[in-house]
Amino acid sequence: MESSSGKPSLGEFELIDRYFARRANGPAPRGDVIVGIGDDAAVLRVPPNADLVAAVDTLVEGRHFPAGSDPRSIGHRSLAVNLSDLAAMGATPAWATLALTIPAADAEWLEGFSSGLLRLAADHDVTLVGGDMTAGPLTVSVQILGFVDRGGALRRGGAAAGDLLAVTGTLGDAGAGLALRMGRMSTANRAAADELIRRFEYPAPRVAFGATARGVASAAIDISDGLAGDLPKLAAASGLAAAVDVAKLPLSAAMRSVVPESEAREFALAAGDDYELLLAVPPERFDELAAAAHQLNLTLTAIGELRPGNGVMWSMHGVFYAPAVRGYDHFR
Amino acid sequence: MESSSGKPSLGEFELIDRYFARRANGPAPRGDVIVGIGDDAAVLRVPPNADLVAAVDTLVEGRHFPAGSDPRSIGHRSLAVNLSDLAAMGATPAWATLALTIPAADAEWLEGFSSGLLRLAADHDVTLVGGDMTAGPLTVSVQILGFVDRGGALRRGGAAAGDLLAVTGTLGDAGAGLALRMGRMSTANRAAADELIRRFEYPAPRVAFGATARGVASAAIDISDGLAGDLPKLAAASGLAAAVDVAKLPLSAAMRSVVPESEAREFALAAGDDYELLLAVPPERFDELAAAAHQLNLTLTAIGELRPGNGVMWSMHGVFYAPAVRGYDHFR
Repeated sequence: MESSSGKPSLGEFELIDRYFARRANGPAPRGDVIVGIGDDAAVLRVPPNADLVAAVDTLVEGRHFPAGSDPRSIGHRSLAVNLSDLAAMGATPAWATLALTIPAADAEWLEGFSSGLLRLAADHDVTLVGGDMTAGPLTVSVQILGFVDRGGALRRGGAAAGDLLAVTGTLGDAGAGLALRMGRMSTANRAAADELIRRFEYPAPRVAFGATARGVASAAIDISDGLAGDLPKLAAASGLAAAVDVAKLPLSAAMRSVVPESEAREFALAAGDDYELLLAVPPERFDELAAAAHQLNLTLTAIGELRPGNGVMWSMHGVFYAPAVRGYDHFR
Repeated sequence: MESSSGKPSLGEFELIDRYFARRANGPAPRGDVIVGIGDDAAVLRVPPNADLVAAVDTLVEGRHFPAGSDPRSIGHRSLAVNLSDLAAMGATPAWATLALTIPAADAEWLEGFSSGLLRLAADHDVTLVGGDMTAGPLTVSVQILGFVDRGGALRRGGAAAGDLLAVTGTLGDAGAGLALRMGRMSTANRAAADELIRRFEYPAPRVAFGATARGVASAAIDISDGLAGDLPKLAAASGLAAAVDVAKLPLSAAMRSVVPESEAREFALAAGDDYELLLAVPPERFDELAAAAHQLNLTLTAIGELRPGNGVMWSMHGVFYAPAVRGYDHFR
């Protein structure tokens, strides 16, 4: 990288070099990165007999995270939300690019942000291969690239009538964590609050499970806009109706200790920030998939099924249930 | 896409569907797009014996384009700057994803923006395969994906001492166009002004020429931060010094008709918005490459050469020349 400047302040290129390039090309870059950060574009080698899988997601300050959030969490989440998209395809992540817009070149902030992003990248053997840093309102776009066996990607539209609907982990925790973090909610149970806030700040994308589910599940989507927002997409893409018993929604002990069950259910329906997966699973293969989840210290919970028709029928113990909320939409 | 809402206003998913998905998957989507817009991620098929090439660039309102710019131009430029990065690698673009952050879902704005982006995409046989739309300050990140013959990417660091430095087209026009557009400069020559402003608003990335230069040029970089900003990067990456005769910088007739030559030279040194290419070319192959450029209605101008050492020596007719400007840096 350029270092021709005698000025004391760090410019764009020095910043990228210090906080991203040196570290991204650090101890163990992937062997399939032919050209990484520092040229006009990255050059990457996709394995033979694999399809390339690509996704992009943006976090905007004040929309996706509160102003003043820990930059380490922002870095973590900016990659996690993209890893979650690849998990939903059953794909293996490999490379990422970063488009970072920040108001000012704050070294402490960049240190935290890059640490959060690159730590999670290392956990998933993802190499940061390029990026762009511009001055402006805090906006973080990460593009994730990965691959999947040729023709083997897990789609939203592959479900059949009779397939069970299943979700990983517990739902709503991150939404409750954000409410606690923002002071919209409070609790005397500090340990539970910390756990819920941590679920918002450091979501664990279900990458390993997604890869395992490929070839077993018939369809999948990541719950990024809330179950009430994302389930209709899976059902519509599969040309089916969905029936869900909200009494079956998996709720964490931390959540139950902080709010009444009725409120917990609403978090579980509305909050997408957990980045759990919603899957359609042929009934005869559910136990096999639940066992695979268990191997990964993850629960898999059946919450309903797919039927001929369209739309979503929510019920509780057999009685119609009207969710108070819809999934998050940025433009409503 | 989801359409379960009875509300009259268009939500995120309907907007993406109306302005991007239907059109991107329109008349002639690429055959190598296995899954396009509408799933958690795109699934793409990279040709055998090719390397994947990936780049990302962001445009921020008020930084990269004036507030209130024609959305069609913003759409065009957001893709053009990325195509230019692939051109500099000698790569062929194929797919793009879009991370669009906009203050409000303005249908007229989206119509213009998507038309500008998708028109240029169609010109280069690029399919928009995914994206993310969020509410916030206007920020546009496009990620471009393409490919290049395995091991054949054109790098910044491949130049040898004695190679000629050459640039495509004319330099500085877009910078002058922006100055005119912003009212920082004026002219009675309306035709020249229109031509220069058009160079800023609708740059033509040198994709076909970049692919031609691969295997002939020894190194390349796109001039996105101005020649004075980008030449040092190519020289440093190649471990060489650069000597440039600024009298040789190619200036357009429109530019010459609007400002004195001395001012035109400063635009040529400072303005990167033309998105021309800077190349290192072995002297014995310069004529061949210039002829190839001519076939594409493009000029190729030798402006200097690479020598042992480091740094950049600017001169004019053999006399030392100190550029008034450095390349643009967002954080200085």
